[in-house]
Amino acid sequence: MSLVLTILGCHSATPRVNAHPTSQYLEINNRHFLIDCGEGTQRQMRKHKVGFSKINHIFISHLHGDHFFGLIGLISTFGILNREKELHIYGPKGLREVTRLQLKVSKSYSKFDIIYHELTSKESELIFEDDKVSVTTIPLNHRVYTNGFLFREKEKLKKLNIENVQQYPEIETCDYHHIKAGKDITLESGEVIKNEELTLAPSKPKSYAFCSDTSYKEDIVPIIKEVDLLYHEATFLSDREDLAKKTKHSTAKQAALIASQAAVKQLIIGHYSSRYTNIDLFKKEASEIFSNVILAEEGKKVSL
Amino acid sequence: MSLVLTILGCHSATPRVNAHPTSQYLEINNRHFLIDCGEGTQRQMRKHKVGFSKINHIFISHLHGDHFFGLIGLISTFGILNREKELHIYGPKGLREVTRLQLKVSKSYSKFDIIYHELTSKESELIFEDDKVSVTTIPLNHRVYTNGFLFREKEKLKKLNIENVQQYPEIETCDYHHIKAGKDITLESGEVIKNEELTLAPSKPKSYAFCSDTSYKEDIVPIIKEVDLLYHEATFLSDREDLAKKTKHSTAKQAALIASQAAVKQLIIGHYSSRYTNIDLFKKEASEIFSNVILAEEGKKVSL
Repeated sequence: MSLVLTILGCHSATPRVNAHPTSQYLEINNRHFLIDCGEGTQRQMRKHKVGFSKINHIFISHLHGDHFFGLIGLISTFGILNREKELHIYGPKGLREVTRLQLKVSKSYSKFDIIYHELTSKESELIFEDDKVSVTTIPLNHRVYTNGFLFREKEKLKKLNIENVQQYPEIETCDYHHIKAGKDITLESGEVIKNEELTLAPSKPKSYAFCSDTSYKEDIVPIIKEVDLLYHEATFLSDREDLAKKTKHSTAKQAALIASQAAVKQLIIGHYSSRYTNIDLFKKEASEIFSNVILAEEGKKVSL
Repeated sequence: MSLVLTILGCHSATPRVNAHPTSQYLEINNRHFLIDCGEGTQRQMRKHKVGFSKINHIFISHLHGDHFFGLIGLISTFGILNREKELHIYGPKGLREVTRLQLKVSKSYSKFDIIYHELTSKESELIFEDDKVSVTTIPLNHRVYTNGFLFREKEKLKKLNIENVQQYPEIETCDYHHIKAGKDITLESGEVIKNEELTLAPSKPKSYAFCSDTSYKEDIVPIIKEVDLLYHEATFLSDREDLAKKTKHSTAKQAALIASQAAVKQLIIGHYSSRYTNIDLFKKEASEIFSNVILAEEGKKVSL
């Protein structure tokens, strides 16, 4: 699998015994990202076997407590575990000041550097890129400055058509990475073997869009168009659309409308208000608009 | 019971699935106190049925993360639950600044006032007192400024000797509080009934001393002399006394030595290092010095 999303917490507001606030762990093209970090996230990481040492990049959507109060504890634990690798944190302005003050009062001086990427733009922007993955922001509309994040795999290398390659004993394994990169091969005889004969098309790059928290906001549709997986918050059902509007959250129906307009392949919803005891109702409501809906649940993995 | 201690978390350093950092809930003479507040404390409060609305006073021993990273989440939850009563927080200087900054960046404006009692003294001092209970600090020796807390019931009213009282039908229930307060009763005939005849001695006021984190520190002995219950940290066993010294923690043996010298009635130990998988060894080591030892365990209640 080139993309695996693990739900660590998917409930709104306050942590309860079996209902943790937002946090997700995303493995995409061999990169490992933590998205949001409500109180108790490090406990949830242990519970669901997320390796602490894999996390080098943490993305924080906004500075409401249920999305970042677990960050300082996680950073502190990295220090206790003698981390040395630098840690990148992407989130709204203010995150650096609040984190540094907590480290200062607790006299937590760690061996690793924290590199803060504080976000202030109201436009979608590229905030991370390497040879495997890019991450861009999705400006959302909430009571405080909030971004979602769009994770995209880069174009992949072609796959070897190993059956065809083995027709030419002269081609060695050390040639394979040239072939995957699209090169033709010239044999000693001078014969040129076209790359098309030796390769298969690469798998299509996968994409994941994380959108929490936000009111219904149609202008994110072009940004998240046709992603493979969309997480969209659904704090309320339509019976409390008034409250969703007032608190700048979405209903399950609104999440589904966004998924439908963006023609995404799959929708996962979460951030359920504690007023609802039966979360199946969220799926029922969303499914009336968009067919491929799954519910976020703690410990659930979605693999693409 | 006039004193009930509930252990919410009793492990050191980082939260794990079934090992939460320090937090305790103390009911004493109808007062309700939270002592320390590591990450996940509010979840532990829910798990162990501690009513959020009962907490008006929170005592923080020191500003290491495993003793206060859960505080901001708890305060935030109080706001979400529409708390209106003022909240008193006692702890080292710095706590106010760090808490207020977090509330500011998360735009959490609550209806209730937070009154900070920031501690800086290196001497034992009275920090809370009402008609039922007093709380004084116990200066400890740790890597950062740290206090333990001594909770003492006030002298109680005498108990009615109801059998004797009922010998005098003239005495009415509205006289009872005068009798409990020590007054004699004069009957209509002029006969004076001495208070001693109508009362029994009050139960002895209970006391609880909380000492975490600290190196072995004999000069706390006079402060905690003969308390009914002493919690003393025991992070290590004697096999790592060197490490205890270096990190300014105590061994189980050292905790027991303090309990013995102070002639306390009962010792409860906790704050176990994660390097030990069998915590019974802590009890074994302490019991060689002091007989009445119990182990802190999550959810355990100690009633006096």
